[in-house]
Amino acid sequence: MKRVFVCDIEKDTEVKDYFLVDRKGIYSSRNNTRYASVRLKDRTGAIEARIWDRVEELSALFERNDIVYVESRAKVYQDQLQLNVASIRKEARDLTYEEIREFHPEAASGVEKLIADFFRITDEIKNEHLRRLFVEMRKRKDILDKFFLIPASLGVHHVSLGGLLEHSVSVAEIALRAVPFLGGDLDIVLAGSLLHDVGKVEEIGLNGGSFAYSDRGRLLGHISLGVMLIEELASAVEGFPDYLADVLKHIVVSHHGEAEWGSPKKPMCIEALVVHYIDNLDAKVMGVKEHMSQNMESEKWTQFHRLYESRFYKIPER
Amino acid sequence: MKRVFVCDIEKDTEVKDYFLVDRKGIYSSRNNTRYASVRLKDRTGAIEARIWDRVEELSALFERNDIVYVESRAKVYQDQLQLNVASIRKEARDLTYEEIREFHPEAASGVEKLIADFFRITDEIKNEHLRRLFVEMRKRKDILDKFFLIPASLGVHHVSLGGLLEHSVSVAEIALRAVPFLGGDLDIVLAGSLLHDVGKVEEIGLNGGSFAYSDRGRLLGHISLGVMLIEELASAVEGFPDYLADVLKHIVVSHHGEAEWGSPKKPMCIEALVVHYIDNLDAKVMGVKEHMSQNMESEKWTQFHRLYESRFYKIPER
Amino acid sequence: MKRVFVCDIEKDTEVKDYFLVDRKGIYSSRNNTRYASVRLKDRTGAIEARIWDRVEELSALFERNDIVYVESRAKVYQDQLQLNVASIRKEARDLTYEEIREFHPEAASGVEKLIADFFRITDEIKNEHLRRLFVEMRKRKDILDKFFLIPASLGVHHVSLGGLLEHSVSVAEIALRAVPFLGGDLDIVLAGSLLHDVGKVEEIGLNGGSFAYSDRGRLLGHISLGVMLIEELASAVEGFPDYLADVLKHIVVSHHGEAEWGSPKKPMCIEALVVHYIDNLDAKVMGVKEHMSQNMESEKWTQFHRLYESRFYKIPER
Amino acid sequence: MKRVFVCDIEKDTEVKDYFLVDRKGIYSSRNNTRYASVRLKDRTGAIEARIWDRVEELSALFERNDIVYVESRAKVYQDQLQLNVASIRKEARDLTYEEIREFHPEAASGVEKLIADFFRITDEIKNEHLRRLFVEMRKRKDILDKFFLIPASLGVHHVSLGGLLEHSVSVAEIALRAVPFLGGDLDIVLAGSLLHDVGKVEEIGLNGGSFAYSDRGRLLGHISLGVMLIEELASAVEGFPDYLADVLKHIVVSHHGEAEWGSPKKPMCIEALVVHYIDNLDAKVMGVKEHMSQNMESEKWTQFHRLYESRFYKIPER
Amino acid sequence: MKRVFVCDIEKDTEVKDYFLVDRKGIYSSRNNTRYASVRLKDRTGAIEARIWDRVEELSALFERNDIVYVESRAKVYQDQLQLNVASIRKEARDLTYEEIREFHPEAASGVEKLIADFFRITDEIKNEHLRRLFVEMRKRKDILDKFFLIPASLGVHHVSLGGLLEHSVSVAEIALRAVPFLGGDLDIVLAGSLLHDVGKVEEIGLNGGSFAYSDRGRLLGHISLGVMLIEELASAVEGFPDYLADVLKHIVVSHHGEAEWGSPKKPMCIEALVVHYIDNLDAKVMGVKEHMSQNMESEKWTQFHRLYESRFYKIPER
Amino acid sequence: MKRVFVCDIEKDTEVKDYFLVDRKGIYSSRNNTRYASVRLKDRTGAIEARIWDRVEELSALFERNDIVYVESRAKVYQDQLQLNVASIRKEARDLTYEEIREFHPEAASGVEKLIADFFRITDEIKNEHLRRLFVEMRKRKDILDKFFLIPASLGVHHVSLGGLLEHSVSVAEIALRAVPFLGGDLDIVLAGSLLHDVGKVEEIGLNGGSFAYSDRGRLLGHISLGVMLIEELASAVEGFPDYLADVLKHIVVSHHGEAEWGSPKKPMCIEALVVHYIDNLDAKVMGVKEHMSQNMESEKWTQFHRLYESRFYKIPER
Repeated sequence: MKRVFVCDIEKDTEVKDYFLVDRKGIYSSRNNTRYASVRLKDRTGAIEARIWDRVEELSALFERNDIVYVESRAKVYQDQLQLNVASIRKEARDLTYEEIREFHPEAASGVEKLIADFFRITDEIKNEHLRRLFVEMRKRKDILDKFFLIPASLGVHHVSLGGLLEHSVSVAEIALRAVPFLGGDLDIVLAGSLLHDVGKVEEIGLNGGSFAYSDRGRLLGHISLGVMLIEELASAVEGFPDYLADVLKHIVVSHHGEAEWGSPKKPMCIEALVVHYIDNLDAKVMGVKEHMSQNMESEKWTQFHRLYESRFYKIPER
Repeated sequence: MKRVFVCDIEKDTEVKDYFLVDRKGIYSSRNNTRYASVRLKDRTGAIEARIWDRVEELSALFERNDIVYVESRAKVYQDQLQLNVASIRKEARDLTYEEIREFHPEAASGVEKLIADFFRITDEIKNEHLRRLFVEMRKRKDILDKFFLIPASLGVHHVSLGGLLEHSVSVAEIALRAVPFLGGDLDIVLAGSLLHDVGKVEEIGLNGGSFAYSDRGRLLGHISLGVMLIEELASAVEGFPDYLADVLKHIVVSHHGEAEWGSPKKPMCIEALVVHYIDNLDAKVMGVKEHMSQNMESEKWTQFHRLYESRFYKIPER
Repeated sequence: MKRVFVCDIEKDTEVKDYFLVDRKGIYSSRNNTRYASVRLKDRTGAIEARIWDRVEELSALFERNDIVYVESRAKVYQDQLQLNVASIRKEARDLTYEEIREFHPEAASGVEKLIADFFRITDEIKNEHLRRLFVEMRKRKDILDKFFLIPASLGVHHVSLGGLLEHSVSVAEIALRAVPFLGGDLDIVLAGSLLHDVGKVEEIGLNGGSFAYSDRGRLLGHISLGVMLIEELASAVEGFPDYLADVLKHIVVSHHGEAEWGSPKKPMCIEALVVHYIDNLDAKVMGVKEHMSQNMESEKWTQFHRLYESRFYKIPER
Repeated sequence: MKRVFVCDIEKDTEVKDYFLVDRKGIYSSRNNTRYASVRLKDRTGAIEARIWDRVEELSALFERNDIVYVESRAKVYQDQLQLNVASIRKEARDLTYEEIREFHPEAASGVEKLIADFFRITDEIKNEHLRRLFVEMRKRKDILDKFFLIPASLGVHHVSLGGLLEHSVSVAEIALRAVPFLGGDLDIVLAGSLLHDVGKVEEIGLNGGSFAYSDRGRLLGHISLGVMLIEELASAVEGFPDYLADVLKHIVVSHHGEAEWGSPKKPMCIEALVVHYIDNLDAKVMGVKEHMSQNMESEKWTQFHRLYESRFYKIPER
Repeated sequence: MKRVFVCDIEKDTEVKDYFLVDRKGIYSSRNNTRYASVRLKDRTGAIEARIWDRVEELSALFERNDIVYVESRAKVYQDQLQLNVASIRKEARDLTYEEIREFHPEAASGVEKLIADFFRITDEIKNEHLRRLFVEMRKRKDILDKFFLIPASLGVHHVSLGGLLEHSVSVAEIALRAVPFLGGDLDIVLAGSLLHDVGKVEEIGLNGGSFAYSDRGRLLGHISLGVMLIEELASAVEGFPDYLADVLKHIVVSHHGEAEWGSPKKPMCIEALVVHYIDNLDAKVMGVKEHMSQNMESEKWTQFHRLYESRFYKIPER
Repeated sequence: MKRVFVCDIEKDTEVKDYFLVDRKGIYSSRNNTRYASVRLKDRTGAIEARIWDRVEELSALFERNDIVYVESRAKVYQDQLQLNVASIRKEARDLTYEEIREFHPEAASGVEKLIADFFRITDEIKNEHLRRLFVEMRKRKDILDKFFLIPASLGVHHVSLGGLLEHSVSVAEIALRAVPFLGGDLDIVLAGSLLHDVGKVEEIGLNGGSFAYSDRGRLLGHISLGVMLIEELASAVEGFPDYLADVLKHIVVSHHGEAEWGSPKKPMCIEALVVHYIDNLDAKVMGVKEHMSQNMESEKWTQFHRLYESRFYKIPER
């Protein structure tokens, strides 16, 4: 879809391409000229764009989070690249998840590698029923495409594109190494690790070119949605044992650990306990790392984190 | 299945019939004779039975909660009727829910009347999709038979046979009268009232001749099980609107009101709020009435109720 | 007191009347002229008023929430009616509750109808002692006038004039219909429904022309104040039974349900349970409806509600 | 009422006197003789009594917590004094609080001294209104007699006769010395200290010869009852300032400190804070001392205290 | 270090002295001249200073909370004294705690008097081991200097210089008078009162010329730090009994009372209970008084206090 | 110390050896002969012993949890080996931890292997300061002996001999494999994993031949005790960096995760988060496995676990 990425824009060139609108506002310059300032984004970064002509008219054509097609010229202003917009319009068509990838930065290790990791881990599973469950999942392009691309949350942890996959794979990788010390059925733990958050593919949807909670996501939550998805997948596998479907669903239902954290049932088997604690560990550590990467107050201390109710400390490197 | 009910047993008659074992123990009499004391139950009451011959042998043939076939003779001992057991054996066959009815007392207004109430209320529903949802439910004899007969809980409130139906109907009856004062879509409130606890048909099962939590009931809880049942019913109705299915499921998901009481989502629409509060009202009041009927410590005060963390006060009648 | 209401003001007419000051500020116009902008309110709406002469002097004569007498002329400015103020002064006299009615919008069904409902419900009460308690209340004009006019809360639910009455009547109407299904003494439930919040007549007072918590309201709360009011009323009724006064006070004391919600005692009798749950139901549903009427973020979702800690969903109409 | 106290009973004497029944049971001796064992109590101690004749008949004449008149003879059995009961009957008349004193041990420093302390502290109060409030209280023999004799609680702290007075005086004594360091109006703090628990005179009543919660105590709690008592006393004092009555009631309402501990309002003025914390301090320390005096598990550690959720440690004396 | 204090500055004099920077900002005057506005502080008050020349250059030389040396002239501007800054530079040297005193207002009764109080109270202690513990503390100038000068908290209570000492002494003074009524070992209570917060000398440090939490303070908290300090002091006293060191540390560990308030152990002996409750009392009352002195919303009511979650009421003086 | 272990006792042999008293009671046989029944234990199992002669005299010589020396003869009674005790006496000497090993079953993988694991993991640490900290710990035989032998808790998880070591090693093993996926300083995580519970060596002591909480353990808890132990060890290492000692202590202080679970500080750095979550994971899973091994109610479900507030489900093996 895109041809020029933000990171490749050079000064004094024409830029005609699609971007995601990150922010939009109308201001007056010193000499009282009105202009629109628009922050445009793609997966490689963000750039300031300015509309100087037909300001009201053009600005009315798009909103924050829309994908827009821009015709512009790159200029340098106060040492920074800026797009001088000649025309801009909202992309009317709904984007596919593949196309969305071009507009959001992705998880550090890269979605392709994470997908490979995902399949490598499913290959570790020996239980025939569970293997066929993942075969079934593979057929469900509607699930898989979102599962591989959406973030794990909107603002708490693993917020980048592919974040849900990154988190699911990471939980499975740690579980794979911890189970020998802890006990529990490794196949079930791996399947549970990869699927504990699968309901997020219905909880999180697209709003224009960005991610947002869907209506059903807000009404039902990813736990109930995940249970229904596993019900769908398991009943598509002939002879999938009831007890096994129940245990997988139980891992989903209980993975928040306590009722007050949103789990109607506490983890009641070793496998569910393992997934719950490693989920917590991975999510919290990643959330703190993301907070550290953006909100240091001094060299050693972050700002206060509202949700985690704490500051965090970066051990000084020596 | 049964021919003679506890309430009809007369002294010095032969009693050959099926009963539910409520309690079992082996004791020594004053003159050191060993005997088994068995409390037998059916829907009309309970009676003491004694085994004096082949005590160990016969006692080993059944357990608490089993349905047994007894051959005995009714005698009077210390002014009380007692069965003198000649032979006793466990009924090997699994009972149907219809047969189970003969062994448990039922809800005060009677299951037949409650079923009639249930259908009368579903007839009040105008929304065509919801009407067809209940038509679909009616086809599902596996759901309906249990829905009409199981208790609403094992020990807290509405514990009699038909208790779930009694509670569901009662919530709907009150909602029917409250909605004009509160607002909200009456059809959705009625459907939600009748179905909010439907997951209990999978949460509660049979253990011998008594009710007990099923494995999947313990692992998933009636909230998740209810969501899946509604998914099943709604997807069997052609053209059932997604938003409507989501709202019904949301009522199920949120009917406990708060995460710490087991609801992963709080009630978010008027209809869910109405069901939640009336559910609470009906369950709590019935629970307290059942506690009052069995656990008065004095004329005015009940014993302390563990779960509700209070004593309760019966206003003296004048 | 008033002659012209906001909704009746016509352009190019003289307006000389009383209003409530909703907001007050001093600004500079484009050409650097200082003016005061005052938002004036009565029960039919609000209008912008401007003071262009003696700005500081006139502005100093009144504060937010004062009742002011204004002499002005209605003009149209940018398509909106505006009052051009020639003189303005604070009303020195304390207003009666009757007069206050002219300045605040009232509950949807109207205070007169609600008063009629109130008396109709008290007429349903058969218990002679309780009937005479309401006769006694009727004599207490100091209580009744406030009871009929104050809002049920300052900002959470039933915030309009007559809101307390609206809420009390609504709880009683629902209780009247629910008691046949739940049990409990109907007379006590009705009296308790109508009086559970009676302490608010001392908790909420007037601050200028608006409602505000009184000192004793903040120090003692409407639960303790309500208990004392019922003590007063009951001891004025000859032969009022002690147990009945205690039960009514208990309904007041326990109507918040749990210690952490401000009730020193949990509801301990059926009647108190019924009032508590229906109070909760009516207050929460009305609070959410008021939030929906003012704070929709999109067509379907409200903004986050701080106190209820949730967004709310308006089912789309079809 | 009594002539012989437990501590004065001598062997081989006749004992004909009133006692409180502390425990009652029927047993069989080694040689199969049935007898009743009754534990009899007065303020000086407890003694074992045995009924050997007409066991069932005599035992049926009284219950635990009754005051009984006993005709018996003191014997020594296995090195312990025991009463051999010839006749026993329940005292039909309700006892006065004065008479009750003979059957319960009283607070360590003695009720007479505590009463003197109480009046000495009220004499420290300079505020004329508050002085007259206590004059009014002095006229109310119905309040004062109970206030001077009931325990502060049934089982948690200050459980002896005069315990409420002991606690109230102790809070006032500490407050008297702490206010110079803390600030606040000393007169109000003293009055609040002495009256914070005054509602207990209605919360706790007599059940036979022992103390028990009254119906209204259970339904309303001592906080609401205390507020009404202060309302009564203050309105009996001509010209008692409203604000002062409100502050006293606020001290009562808030003295448990937090909603979850039963206070509908937190302490909001210095005076209420001082009473709350010193109340807590005195009650908890006394509760722990009473626990230590009766429940040491070893030389240094008490058993686990259910309510306080801890063991306690007695510093070894050196 | 200082020669001229803010309270002594006179108009039209030269002011060359050290101050603490309380606030710093760069603004434009009406006629578009840029200037720096700096709020300078010492223990006697604060004064506005202005930099009109070399604004950017001079402003870059110091930050908020730095101690600066200023050469300036005092002028009157709009009826207020102001310093016209000719030169300003950050003091490079770290200040001693003695020097810091010149820049912060101190506790009301004065640090010297509080130190005298502290030693007078330690003289009340009879236990030889505890006496020698305080002798040891007296040798530790590193501890003592901070203990005598730092505030008890940064923003909640006792925030002035010497606040920790003021609080520790006040707890001990109240305890000294309360123990005779409560019981407990007076020597241990006094030592515990004076040392319960001793860990704050490591929790709070200097940041420029102001107080701030140290890294180890944030990581370990004053409870753990206090335990280690007492370990240090006690092991420096020959023959200090283990049990006594454990009890002192227990007082430190438990003085917040409950796990959720940061105490890993609840108070388990009378002495720890006494310190805990009096600590709470003194800290809360002082915190409320400080809030009252700065945040009254009206004559009688303070603004809402975030941490204490309440408004507070000042009893009107008559 | 021991020569014959329970598992090796053969019938009709003399048994003269040391055992731990697990239970002791005096009973009457059918023919009214009094005897003492004593359950004796060592690390290989338990055996019933009977005292038939001088019952009172011999029984008075020892208590539960004592180590006793027994002279006896092994007999078979009702198909079970039993010791016929001729003489029995309490071992007066305090046992060393080495000797204690003979009387308690040890962790599944064996203490020797766990010690080897411990040293292998410390060898993985590259940081010179941390390496020397463990060298220092190795010199402290008083710490190390207990660290290698005590259980991790008395009754919750890892209750066998060597349980603390087993748990510490297990946390470190999992952390070693998880850190590559999570980030954080591996050396610090490993040291923190091995030392997070080190304070238990002072929290848990010996009571006779069994483990029990020490006085200082109850008063201070293993968190405070651990901080002091690390302080001791770190200050014995020359040049040990302050920041590193603080981080290690922070891991100890915060490893329970939340104030309400006993941690005065939440984990504030990646390393502390990793230790906290893996500690939780390992302790909880092991606790559930131990519960499963002893408390199955049916084939699939355990009994209710008081502390964990749940039943647990054993996935059926297929």
